[in-house]
Amino acid sequence: MPTDESIAKINWLIHSKNGGSHLRDLMGGKGAELAEMTSLGIPVPPSFTITTQACKVYFDSNKRLPDTAWTQVLEAVSILEAETDKIFGSPSNPLLVSVRSGAVVSMPGMMDTILNLGMTEEIANGVAAQTGNERFALDLYRRFVQMYGNVVLGVPADLFESIINDHKISTKSLLTAELSPKTLRNIISKFNELIEDSAGVRIPSDPQSQLKLAIQAVFDSWNSRRAIDYRNHHGIAHDLGTAVSVVAMVYGNRSSQSCTGVVFTRDPSTGENRTYGEFLVNAQGEDVVSGLMTPRDIGDLKTEMPAVYKELIDVGSRLESHYRDVQDIEFTVEEGKLYILQTRSAKRSAQASVKIAVDMVDEGLIKVEDALLSIDPSQIYQLLLPSLDEDAKQQANNDQRLIVTGLGASPGGASGKVVFDADLAEAMAKEGERVILVRSETSPDDVHGMIASVGILTSRGGTTSHAAVVARGLGKPCVTGANNMEVNPVDGYFTCNNIIVNQGEEISVDGSSGEVFQGAIASVIPGISGQLELTKLLSWADDVRTLQIWANADYPKDAQIAIEFGAEGIGLCRTEHMFFEPERLVLMRDMIVYAHILSDKSTDTLTRKKYLNTINRLQLFQSNDFENIFKVMQGKPVVIRLLDPPLHEFLPNRDEILEEVIELRLKGENRSLLSEKEKLLNILDEMRESNPMLGLRGCRLGIRYYEIYAMQVRAIMAAVLKTQLEGISVQPEIMIPFVGHGNEMRYIRDQLRTTIDEYLGDRNKHVNYKIGTMIEIPRAALTADEIAESAEFFSFGTNDLTQTTFGYSRDDAEGKFLTNYKEKGIISQDPFEVLDRKGVGQLISIAARLGKETRPDLVLGICGEHGGDSSSIEFCHSIGLDYVSCSPYRVPIARIAAARAALLADRHYSLIPISGLP
Amino acid sequence: MPTDESIAKINWLIHSKNGGSHLRDLMGGKGAELAEMTSLGIPVPPSFTITTQACKVYFDSNKRLPDTAWTQVLEAVSILEAETDKIFGSPSNPLLVSVRSGAVVSMPGMMDTILNLGMTEEIANGVAAQTGNERFALDLYRRFVQMYGNVVLGVPADLFESIINDHKISTKSLLTAELSPKTLRNIISKFNELIEDSAGVRIPSDPQSQLKLAIQAVFDSWNSRRAIDYRNHHGIAHDLGTAVSVVAMVYGNRSSQSCTGVVFTRDPSTGENRTYGEFLVNAQGEDVVSGLMTPRDIGDLKTEMPAVYKELIDVGSRLESHYRDVQDIEFTVEEGKLYILQTRSAKRSAQASVKIAVDMVDEGLIKVEDALLSIDPSQIYQLLLPSLDEDAKQQANNDQRLIVTGLGASPGGASGKVVFDADLAEAMAKEGERVILVRSETSPDDVHGMIASVGILTSRGGTTSHAAVVARGLGKPCVTGANNMEVNPVDGYFTCNNIIVNQGEEISVDGSSGEVFQGAIASVIPGISGQLELTKLLSWADDVRTLQIWANADYPKDAQIAIEFGAEGIGLCRTEHMFFEPERLVLMRDMIVYAHILSDKSTDTLTRKKYLNTINRLQLFQSNDFENIFKVMQGKPVVIRLLDPPLHEFLPNRDEILEEVIELRLKGENRSLLSEKEKLLNILDEMRESNPMLGLRGCRLGIRYYEIYAMQVRAIMAAVLKTQLEGISVQPEIMIPFVGHGNEMRYIRDQLRTTIDEYLGDRNKHVNYKIGTMIEIPRAALTADEIAESAEFFSFGTNDLTQTTFGYSRDDAEGKFLTNYKEKGIISQDPFEVLDRKGVGQLISIAARLGKETRPDLVLGICGEHGGDSSSIEFCHSIGLDYVSCSPYRVPIARIAAARAALLADRHYSLIPISGLP
Repeated sequence: MPTDESIAKINWLIHSKNGGSHLRDLMGGKGAELAEMTSLGIPVPPSFTITTQACKVYFDSNKRLPDTAWTQVLEAVSILEAETDKIFGSPSNPLLVSVRSGAVVSMPGMMDTILNLGMTEEIANGVAAQTGNERFALDLYRRFVQMYGNVVLGVPADLFESIINDHKISTKSLLTAELSPKTLRNIISKFNELIEDSAGVRIPSDPQSQLKLAIQAVFDSWNSRRAIDYRNHHGIAHDLGTAVSVVAMVYGNRSSQSCTGVVFTRDPSTGENRTYGEFLVNAQGEDVVSGLMTPRDIGDLKTEMPAVYKELIDVGSRLESHYRDVQDIEFTVEEGKLYILQTRSAKRSAQASVKIAVDMVDEGLIKVEDALLSIDPSQIYQLLLPSLDEDAKQQANNDQRLIVTGLGASPGGASGKVVFDADLAEAMAKEGERVILVRSETSPDDVHGMIASVGILTSRGGTTSHAAVVARGLGKPCVTGANNMEVNPVDGYFTCNNIIVNQGEEISVDGSSGEVFQGAIASVIPGISGQLELTKLLSWADDVRTLQIWANADYPKDAQIAIEFGAEGIGLCRTEHMFFEPERLVLMRDMIVYAHILSDKSTDTLTRKKYLNTINRLQLFQSNDFENIFKVMQGKPVVIRLLDPPLHEFLPNRDEILEEVIELRLKGENRSLLSEKEKLLNILDEMRESNPMLGLRGCRLGIRYYEIYAMQVRAIMAAVLKTQLEGISVQPEIMIPFVGHGNEMRYIRDQLRTTIDEYLGDRNKHVNYKIGTMIEIPRAALTADEIAESAEFFSFGTNDLTQTTFGYSRDDAEGKFLTNYKEKGIISQDPFEVLDRKGVGQLISIAARLGKETRPDLVLGICGEHGGDSSSIEFCHSIGLDYVSCSPYRVPIARIAAARAALLADRHYSLIPISGLP
Repeated sequence: MPTDESIAKINWLIHSKNGGSHLRDLMGGKGAELAEMTSLGIPVPPSFTITTQACKVYFDSNKRLPDTAWTQVLEAVSILEAETDKIFGSPSNPLLVSVRSGAVVSMPGMMDTILNLGMTEEIANGVAAQTGNERFALDLYRRFVQMYGNVVLGVPADLFESIINDHKISTKSLLTAELSPKTLRNIISKFNELIEDSAGVRIPSDPQSQLKLAIQAVFDSWNSRRAIDYRNHHGIAHDLGTAVSVVAMVYGNRSSQSCTGVVFTRDPSTGENRTYGEFLVNAQGEDVVSGLMTPRDIGDLKTEMPAVYKELIDVGSRLESHYRDVQDIEFTVEEGKLYILQTRSAKRSAQASVKIAVDMVDEGLIKVEDALLSIDPSQIYQLLLPSLDEDAKQQANNDQRLIVTGLGASPGGASGKVVFDADLAEAMAKEGERVILVRSETSPDDVHGMIASVGILTSRGGTTSHAAVVARGLGKPCVTGANNMEVNPVDGYFTCNNIIVNQGEEISVDGSSGEVFQGAIASVIPGISGQLELTKLLSWADDVRTLQIWANADYPKDAQIAIEFGAEGIGLCRTEHMFFEPERLVLMRDMIVYAHILSDKSTDTLTRKKYLNTINRLQLFQSNDFENIFKVMQGKPVVIRLLDPPLHEFLPNRDEILEEVIELRLKGENRSLLSEKEKLLNILDEMRESNPMLGLRGCRLGIRYYEIYAMQVRAIMAAVLKTQLEGISVQPEIMIPFVGHGNEMRYIRDQLRTTIDEYLGDRNKHVNYKIGTMIEIPRAALTADEIAESAEFFSFGTNDLTQTTFGYSRDDAEGKFLTNYKEKGIISQDPFEVLDRKGVGQLISIAARLGKETRPDLVLGICGEHGGDSSSIEFCHSIGLDYVSCSPYRVPIARIAAARAALLADRHYSLIPISGLP
């Protein structure tokens, strides 16, 4: 028997009595934990593991198991025989085994498990004679043929099920367990025929060949298309290989004193510290999974087999202490004796994650740092938003009310009445209705309707589309890119797969899963202050982290939420969002039209008068907004970005105006209206851009139509002066968007300073303020030394920076090719969600370095969507940024992610990957 | 008197007898050359120069001339007095001076020259008495008041002119010279009134004060808005300052034995080695410039003043030898004595540049290297294209036939009939008509019409618009962005400023100057092989350069031109251009529609059949094109880029279809046509992208619709096999566009290899080929090490790389903000024309370095529009690229630019900036 030390030399077989968790890379997850449990004295059936190294040799030998390897497998089998006192292939006292794949990370598309291997007709008869239980023997045989045929030989599972069903009907049996030995023999015979027809081969009648083929099949499944795609997608190396564990069978289907089941050491849904699980008497493992039999609650086991139950609880407790984590344990009881077949860290809900982590610290089981590292920060988001009740959703699913699945673009869930028009949405919301805005896609024109709605659904767009970004900012559930929908706003309905949903009918959207249901579904609103464990965890995170967490907030109420969620400043206040409210939009449109006319005819004094008048009215609105935000923030830093988007975003839809013009032309009436509309169409056409994302926006606008920026900084200063009257000190930070050249920054900085100095000079006041820029164009990053000469801070606008660095249009990429890229494994993650370190991150590093060369005290932050993503936050920590700014609802996520980043960087902790329940 | 050595210490005044060309930085251009000429013994009037250093001190002292400085000026004046034997401010024997600004580079917006300074009424009377010529004295005084009032005190020039005109009319005089002393006195009196009214000050009656104010005015003009903008635009430092030269006056208006004029030592238009110039008897310098008097040919001087003429020729010859360049010389003759007032390198036409450079080498005056460095490579382009005859253009200008000026987007000139439709253009061209295609902007639909036209004119778009790029590729003159035009193709006319031009009327376009004329204008076609000097120069360039010059060629005839112009390979063959020809476009559209349907319904076998059938038909066309190109190239490298643009570029215009649909809907007739159009609109809307430049294009297309790329590589291989039958060896290089990730490159490379191997395997053939990529996305540059793992060559696509690095939409930037940026001095050059070294160049350097780390033998080239720009070529040479690829007509430019780059880099030559005549 090889020892730990000799494994590296032999690299072939490892008996589970050697090895353990520390050899996970070599033994795979299942094998390592079997070995670990064995060494702990947990009752595990005898077993051995063929290492990942063997898998590599197999592929290097052109998919052949070398003879020496096979000799070693047989040697290991003979050890199992000795330990179990059974003989592999012996009809009178047969050793049966399960064969399990064992990659380091479990992987969809890979073979899972084959039970009862080593079975033949002769052996079945032997078992029947030995146990006096023919039904048991034939049940084992039937299960083996079915699983081997499906898993190893690839015959579709439903073909086997349909044979069983035929026999249930003809024998009028409800359960498989009720089938007679004779029927079982018929079924097995049909199975064998099916296999020969479908796969063109028979199951080997020799147990050794069965084993050899099964091992090779596990190895081969490592390179199945789905497994490769999965690895591409998750960035897992393709040369790791998989291990194979061979475990002596124990029989939960032996008698009524036998059973099989699964327990969690704590409730994976709530986190409560109580054993949770279920079991099936007289059954084998796959019966629990298949859902054909209804398992019983683990509590019943306490009554029926109290000793076994006590031992199971005890084992669970030992394993939890040992692994310092909640365990998900598979067990089997054979004739009253407990065996543990597998243990692993339990998947759990967001709520359970937090409760368990905090409880375990309180119990002294883990340290605060472990607790922080055990949390997937992105899960925290779910704790802060209303979401659809999972049971109610399941029910709706059973009722076939799921009508379409799009992209989960902004988490949370909501039910409401379908509305296709933003104005109507607003009107209905004022009447107290809960509405869901449904559009093919949203535009800035729809924002007031989105604000009024409880959820948003669009048939187009990705997870960074307008709808998605705005919804996340608003903390509203949103489903985008529901391609199978056709939205017909004019006639007031949408269709998906022949189902018609009319305006006013109720639907429910799940912004996490992307599901859309007909009718209402109950939702749960968790709140934050009531969540004591979460509050505790967040305060621990604050102690650990060094990165500051700021929020992106455009309205005073967003700022309020941000403060409640622990934000230390506002890193991005987008002034344009303020312009989209209806009464301001009218002024905004006037202003744009005047500015456009003036850019041709600068001498038109009447228009100039109107222009300046409109600007002054907008200034009052803006000033008021800023004042309210400053008051909420009570002196904390506020970064205000001047107008960024292309002006035509504020104008009416061009296609609609075109339609009106054509209609008016055809009718030949109302010439004055036609002429007015034609003028508007003309302006729209003149302002139109082929690629607006790369067009006249950001500081390019500010330079060309400087009066708009001047108005904005006057509004800021007016707000500062008013806020200061209340004894609140404000030091506003003015941010210039879309700078790509040092000269742009200098030009606009000089202009703004002049405007501000004049404004304050007239009032005999002084205000400390900063002027800085977003770094969101590759050239800005590459020339950051020049830009820093006139910028006092940098904020990385990673949405746009990702867009230009990749050349991916945010509006188009998702639907047009990104999904396709993910399917093909070309990219593993959406770079708009998780910061691309190699490309975008490299530019950020370059910019940070160059910027600090020019201005060592330069403040550096990030304010893109990535500010709320934990991997991206880790990167920001690693390159020494001062803060990340994210949407208010993501502030708690960011606080934990920043703490994890600090731990991982400074204390060399390693990440514990835990994924949540669906 | 300060010596060279003491100048640095004193830094104030420099007498022109010291100094010289080597002190240009300190003395400015004019001062340095006055000193240089003085030291050569050329007859220059006594003079001194106030240095640029003084200018800096002036600005550092809050725009005050320190007392010590002024003392030094007065000291210098007294030296002038001694040298001229005249007294500054003396009525009986006055010294008058000219004051001239003298920046290192002459700069629009800066003060130029004031003549006759030191004049007062009293002195005028003194001069009248002294010379016995009252008219002469008053003429000097009149000139002084007029110039001083205009240049120093800023009174508009036309106000002075109008006073003179009034007096000419009232005295019935034709020429100023005919005005009587009395009238002159009246005029001077009116001038003084005008100055007092307009400027609110009087001209100082004290010559010293006049001088002081004039010097300060020259200094101040360094910081005029126009001068600052100019420096921003040309990247000239703002702290250089200007010098001021003070030169004793000599009088070309003294008598009929006096004159003033300008000579060139060779003909600046043709380069012919003969003295060229003109002069005016009894006049001062500004009379030559003003155009009010008609100067006489310099030949006449030979007859009238043979000794002076001989001396002038002799001086010219000495100056040319001394400066080793053609000189542009200002001279004045006072009473038969010659004075040289200024000399500088002459601006010259492209043709003259080449002839002069080659002649001077032949004459032993300069070396081959000097000749190459004396050429502005971009001028060479003009020698290769038909262009409007300059004289004929001037005539058309005089006839007021110039109707609009847009952007000179593709050089050369042509006359032809206006056509608004591409099909009609083609049809008319087939009938032998010369047509000019006029559109608001062009699209790929128009390409066949552009090919058929002799010139292109668009009212929208910049110098990198579709029209511009295609036109340059075709070598056709093109004017874009003629904003004042309104094109009305439906009614068949366009208007500019109330002029209506109908379809079929003749116009002429000058693609260099952007001018558009009514009617035909003679054009000149220089040809290349007949240009002996050019041929010689190019062969010298080939000896010197190390960079290879390849060409961008999409058609066999382009390849033919490229070869004739000396291209060593094809660096970019854009396969999509082949699809725009009408019969192929139909197939292309079908293919796209099928592919689109299949991407939803992959099981639609009928559509799939049609799809593959269409693809096969396209393959035959492509294969034939490639074969012809390979044959022209005779084994030279050919890089073929697979399909790049978004597919909707091949489809009909969406807005037009929308209009048709709206109309059909409103009319309610022809439902079947409506339904058909609606289907098409639906497809167009589904394929529509918000930012197509960042959308589904390049390899993203190839990955999603792989069959298209597969077809293209099969077509390439088929063409290779056919070409090889003729004994021509071909090693095609297949280029994948728009790669941004190593995985994209690997994925598509693997797929293409499989397709090619299958194709060749079926035919039992072997072909050596390479697969490489364009680097045109910032992320590609930043991750070039990963991309080079599966790319055998890189070609930098600097158009797109500039677009994404700057975030400038090529389609929009020019009109929307770039022009504005240039006006404001924010950018000095269009980055789409001249490679931005700091941003885009940095990415190219990074990519070249990373790429070579992975693959040391990686071939590196550039194939954007920058491949034909000399500054960009210099950069490419400096970072060690292997080749640049440019449009065929730019190959000669690139050959010379590459030679210059090699000289500048390897031999530490310095650039001689020479700009061409307009």
